[in-house]
Amino acid sequence: MTKSSKHILLSLDAMGGDKGPDMVIEGASIALRENPNLRFLVYGDERKIKPLFKKYPTLENVAQIFHTTEKVNSHDKPSVALRQSRNSSMRLAINAVSTGLAQGVVSAGNTGAYMAMGKIFLKMIDGIDRPAIVSPFPTKTKPCVMLDLGANVVCDEHHLCQFAVMGKVYAQEFLDIKNPTVGLLNVGEEEQKGNDAIQNAAQLLKKAKKTLRFEGFVEGNDITTGKVDVIVTDGFTGNVALKAIEGVIGFTMGILKSVFTSSIFSKIGYLLAMRAFKRHTAQINPKKYNGAMLIGLRGIAIKSHGGADAVAFSNAIHAAAKFASHDMNKKIEKNIAQLHKELG
Amino acid sequence: MTKSSKHILLSLDAMGGDKGPDMVIEGASIALRENPNLRFLVYGDERKIKPLFKKYPTLENVAQIFHTTEKVNSHDKPSVALRQSRNSSMRLAINAVSTGLAQGVVSAGNTGAYMAMGKIFLKMIDGIDRPAIVSPFPTKTKPCVMLDLGANVVCDEHHLCQFAVMGKVYAQEFLDIKNPTVGLLNVGEEEQKGNDAIQNAAQLLKKAKKTLRFEGFVEGNDITTGKVDVIVTDGFTGNVALKAIEGVIGFTMGILKSVFTSSIFSKIGYLLAMRAFKRHTAQINPKKYNGAMLIGLRGIAIKSHGGADAVAFSNAIHAAAKFASHDMNKKIEKNIAQLHKELG
Repeated sequence: MTKSSKHILLSLDAMGGDKGPDMVIEGASIALRENPNLRFLVYGDERKIKPLFKKYPTLENVAQIFHTTEKVNSHDKPSVALRQSRNSSMRLAINAVSTGLAQGVVSAGNTGAYMAMGKIFLKMIDGIDRPAIVSPFPTKTKPCVMLDLGANVVCDEHHLCQFAVMGKVYAQEFLDIKNPTVGLLNVGEEEQKGNDAIQNAAQLLKKAKKTLRFEGFVEGNDITTGKVDVIVTDGFTGNVALKAIEGVIGFTMGILKSVFTSSIFSKIGYLLAMRAFKRHTAQINPKKYNGAMLIGLRGIAIKSHGGADAVAFSNAIHAAAKFASHDMNKKIEKNIAQLHKELG
Repeated sequence: MTKSSKHILLSLDAMGGDKGPDMVIEGASIALRENPNLRFLVYGDERKIKPLFKKYPTLENVAQIFHTTEKVNSHDKPSVALRQSRNSSMRLAINAVSTGLAQGVVSAGNTGAYMAMGKIFLKMIDGIDRPAIVSPFPTKTKPCVMLDLGANVVCDEHHLCQFAVMGKVYAQEFLDIKNPTVGLLNVGEEEQKGNDAIQNAAQLLKKAKKTLRFEGFVEGNDITTGKVDVIVTDGFTGNVALKAIEGVIGFTMGILKSVFTSSIFSKIGYLLAMRAFKRHTAQINPKKYNGAMLIGLRGIAIKSHGGADAVAFSNAIHAAAKFASHDMNKKIEKNIAQLHKELG
C-alpha cells in the first residue's frame, strides 16, 4: 500500500454492523471504485477479512489489515465496551485516528460504545460537552441538517445550545449555507410548548443573536419541509424521528412496488414513468444519506447505520473522505466561545 | 332536530382548528352525507355559523347551534384556558358530554386545553392518571395503535404502563385484535437502551404477564413494519414521530406528483397506473386517519388535527360516532386493576 498527499487514509471497523466484514469489505471496494484516492486500514478478524479480499483484488492493493479477534457487540453497554474491549476492532480503528495515522474512522457498530470511545480517545472540541450524531436530510426545498440523531438520550439546555452551534457550522461547511437558520424540534410552535430543557434552550438561543439565527420551535413535519436549515433535538427524539422517516420511506416504496406490479396497465405505466421515477426518488433513498458524523470530536468519526448494506456503507466511507479534507473544529470552537460570551 | 335511539348525537367545537367554522361545518355536512344517523350540537359564534348552514340545508335540519363568542386560542396555556374560558366553544362542547346530552365531542382546537378540560370535566377512568392521545397507524401488514401522540410531554413509567393497558384495550375493541402485542418505543432493541422512565416501564411491563403481551423495545421504523400491535411512547416523542411521518408522506406524494408530470411518457404512465395508484395509496392518506381519541376519559372526546380540512374533520366525526357506540371504559378499569395486582 502506497499513500501520497492526494490520498485519503481511513480506518475501518470491519466487525461493526449487522452484516459484519462481508458488508464492510464490499462497501470499501465500491467506494474505491468511485474514488481511487481512498486508502484503508482495516481492523478485524483476518481469517474473515482475507478471504473477502480475494474477491476484490484492487482493494487488497490499497488496504492493510490489522488483525484482532476482539469486537464490541451490539448489546454491550458503553461502559463495558470501554473497559473490556481495548483490542476491539472499533477501539483500534479509533486509535488510528487519535494517533494521527488515519484521517478518519468509519464504523457501523454499537453507537453508544462508539460515542464513548470517541469522546475519550479522540477528545472533545473545547466548549463541547458531548458529541452528537449529525446528518443531512432531504427536504422539499434544499437539504437540512438534524442533530442529535441518537448519541445522547437525555440532553439539557446547554447540550442543545451546543448542538445548535455545531449544526450551524456543519450546514455552513457541508451544505454551503452562509447564514443557516436554526429551529428547536418541539410538539408545537407556540412558546409555552415542550419540556424544561427545550423551554430553557429556546430562551438561551434567543439571546445568542450574534452566534446564530434562531427561528424558534419547529415540528416533526418540518424535518421535510425545509423550514429551517438546522433542526436541533435530543438524541432520543432525533433517533426515533430518523428511523420513523426511514421506515415510512421504505413502506411507501413498498406500496409503489405493489402499485406498479398490480396489473398489466400499471406495469406499462411504470415502464413509461421509470426514468422520471428513478431520477426523482434518488434524493430520498436512505442509503444515499448513510454516514452520519459524530460531531464535536477532535477527529473525524463516521457512524454508518447498523443495518447498512455495502452500497450504504460505501456512502459512509465517502462521507468520511469528504469530512477528512475539511477543518471545521476551529470554527466550532470560535462559535462556541462567542455563544458563551453572549450568554454571559 | 329530532333524535331517536338509532341516532348518534355529537357536540362540535366549531371554533377550533386553523380553518375555523368553515372547515367544521363543511366537515359535518360531509360526515352527515356518509352517515345520515348523525345529529349535532354546534358550539360557537352564531354569526359565523348560521351563514354557513345556508350552504348545507340538510345539515341545518339535524344540528342545533349554541351561541358563544368565547373561544380557546391555539397559543393559550391550558391553565389559562381552564380559568378564563368557561363559556368557550370547547368547554361548552365538552360539557355537553359530561352532562350526558351528547355521546361524544369533536374539536380541532388547542390540544393542551382540550386535554386539561377533558380531564377535569369528563373525569378520568379509575386507575388512569392522565388521558393519552391514541390513533391507529397503517403498517406493512395490519394497522397498529400508537399512544401517546401528544397529550403528555413528560411521562414516567407508571404513565407508560397505563398507556400500554389502554392501547391494548383500544386495539381489542377497534382493530379486533384478540391478544395484542405491546412494544415500548426506544432508540434500540437492546435492554440497556433508553432513559430511566422507559427502562423502568420495561421492567414493570415484563412482570405484567397476565395483563398484556409485552414484546420489549421497538424502534422508530417499527411504527410502519407492524412488528407489534400497540406502540407505547411519551407524548413528546409520539407527537414528533407522528408529524415526521405525516410530513414525509406529504413529501413523497409531492415527489410522485413531479414524477408523473415530468414528461409525456410519465404522464401516460400515470394514466395507466392511476387506478392501482389511488387504490394502494388510500391506506396511507393522513386524512383518513384523522380523529385521534383522548383515551382514559370517562366520555368520548375526539381530537382532530388542528390543520385538518373538511374531509379530514369528517373522518374525526366518524371516529367519534364509532367510539360512541362502544363502552371500553369498564374493560380498561378491569385491565388496570389486574395490572396493579400483578405489580403488587
